[in-house]
Amino acid sequence: MRKLNLSTAQQIISAAFEKAEALGLKPLTVAVMDDGGHLVALARQDGSSILRPQIACGKAFGALAVGTGTRFLNTAAEVRPHFVQALNGVAGGAIVPVPGGVLVRDGAGEVLGAVGITGDTSDNDEAAALAGIASVGLEADCG
Amino acid sequence: MRKLNLSTAQQIISAAFEKAEALGLKPLTVAVMDDGGHLVALARQDGSSILRPQIACGKAFGALAVGTGTRFLNTAAEVRPHFVQALNGVAGGAIVPVPGGVLVRDGAGEVLGAVGITGDTSDNDEAAALAGIASVGLEADCG
Amino acid sequence: MRKLNLSTAQQIISAAFEKAEALGLKPLTVAVMDDGGHLVALARQDGSSILRPQIACGKAFGALAVGTGTRFLNTAAEVRPHFVQALNGVAGGAIVPVPGGVLVRDGAGEVLGAVGITGDTSDNDEAAALAGIASVGLEADCG
Amino acid sequence: MRKLNLSTAQQIISAAFEKAEALGLKPLTVAVMDDGGHLVALARQDGSSILRPQIACGKAFGALAVGTGTRFLNTAAEVRPHFVQALNGVAGGAIVPVPGGVLVRDGAGEVLGAVGITGDTSDNDEAAALAGIASVGLEADCG
Repeated sequence: MRKLNLSTAQQIISAAFEKAEALGLKPLTVAVMDDGGHLVALARQDGSSILRPQIACGKAFGALAVGTGTRFLNTAAEVRPHFVQALNGVAGGAIVPVPGGVLVRDGAGEVLGAVGITGDTSDNDEAAALAGIASVGLEADCG
Repeated sequence: MRKLNLSTAQQIISAAFEKAEALGLKPLTVAVMDDGGHLVALARQDGSSILRPQIACGKAFGALAVGTGTRFLNTAAEVRPHFVQALNGVAGGAIVPVPGGVLVRDGAGEVLGAVGITGDTSDNDEAAALAGIASVGLEADCG
Repeated sequence: MRKLNLSTAQQIISAAFEKAEALGLKPLTVAVMDDGGHLVALARQDGSSILRPQIACGKAFGALAVGTGTRFLNTAAEVRPHFVQALNGVAGGAIVPVPGGVLVRDGAGEVLGAVGITGDTSDNDEAAALAGIASVGLEADCG
Repeated sequence: MRKLNLSTAQQIISAAFEKAEALGLKPLTVAVMDDGGHLVALARQDGSSILRPQIACGKAFGALAVGTGTRFLNTAAEVRPHFVQALNGVAGGAIVPVPGGVLVRDGAGEVLGAVGITGDTSDNDEAAALAGIASVGLEADCG
């Protein structure tokens, strides 16, 4: 696959929601971006609060911005807060540096895009992203 | 229905894409927002260019901002450009005042949300939105 | 080619500068972006003024934003100024809608990126972009 | 030399990439700015993530902003975080205060510009910048 296309993105979202239901998670919002950081698909479950689309996008974009999952940025924010603050400065505030932003790679390691999920704990958000990515046979990079 | 929920939004998107295929339109991006102007679902077809998510959202948000479809804003932009410019000033530039942003109302006239579509001509974008809204039995307001 | 890589971008820039020299153009700035609207390479010739990098990027990004060269946006700005103003609203002012932003496609029509050039007249800027893109055997879309 | 010209900037970039290859670094992005804080040349290696151009520029600009390399700002961010935060306030968020932004001076100590590099650890980014600046016989100031 050259691009993370719409049907793949929609399948990732469906599988993430199935995982969330199996785990009994709160209502989620899922954003799937291509490798350029542009939305391919987004879905906000009933009851997921109003800023969740921006948070989900902020996780997906954060992963793509630095080329690894946002778990890396979460650690960086604790160890070198001035770096992550500055990163958000040059990003125009578009990055949410907590787990739940997961890079999507193909078998050769090429970045195809990213998934950002929010609504439950960051760890559970990430678990749903991993299930979504696994469902389409692609590789996940949590950071 | 009190809220435009996710399954309704996804059905609107599917029906809009079917209409686009029947008409032979270019790749579209569709945004569906609730009555608060917040995304419920978005889908960008393969080949739809990178700023299309923002344009689709700008049409849907524009319709909700003034309480009617963006066809109204398109006319206003020609007749009273200073009004639409000022509107975008208070909106932080978030409004795209051309046809293709269609308000979604229930049978009682209550606003449930809006659909914004971009990718082909503004008229064709709007036609796809109308088909999407009709498919779920709700009322469309083009402005 | 899956991506517009660095060596291709640098070759485009070299060939654009050769064309500019042959035509006796003023000092140019050339930006080459990938399909996600992210810089791959930029070069500003001695004497090219200080905002030229942003202008060159604004042309390249404008082409990618709407999926065609900025000659399309130049016409749109004259015919439907409110559309192009709104486009720049949702783009955060990142688009320069005049000729000289040229989309780069492969032989199958897939968008690989864009070239933005500024420094001389818009027509001459575009001519240099075309020469650059031709030098690497890719297709140009001026809009 | 009064100005850091394009051929010098391109030579700095080439030498930085050679050093990176010798050290086995990850894909880098290099920005070279003149003494006014304006880009002269930028190159992003294949695989360097999408926000790297902004990060590289943020390091180069940070060095020029305070007249010394960003290693100074990194220390300041730890010791006096309110100063660096305020600095980024007046800079509109354009500064990335971590090592890898290196000031370029001539033999008389005059500031000619700055190099910003990102992609590997901050220390390795800086090492590549030093190699680039040394290759053109100019003086480096890491801060």
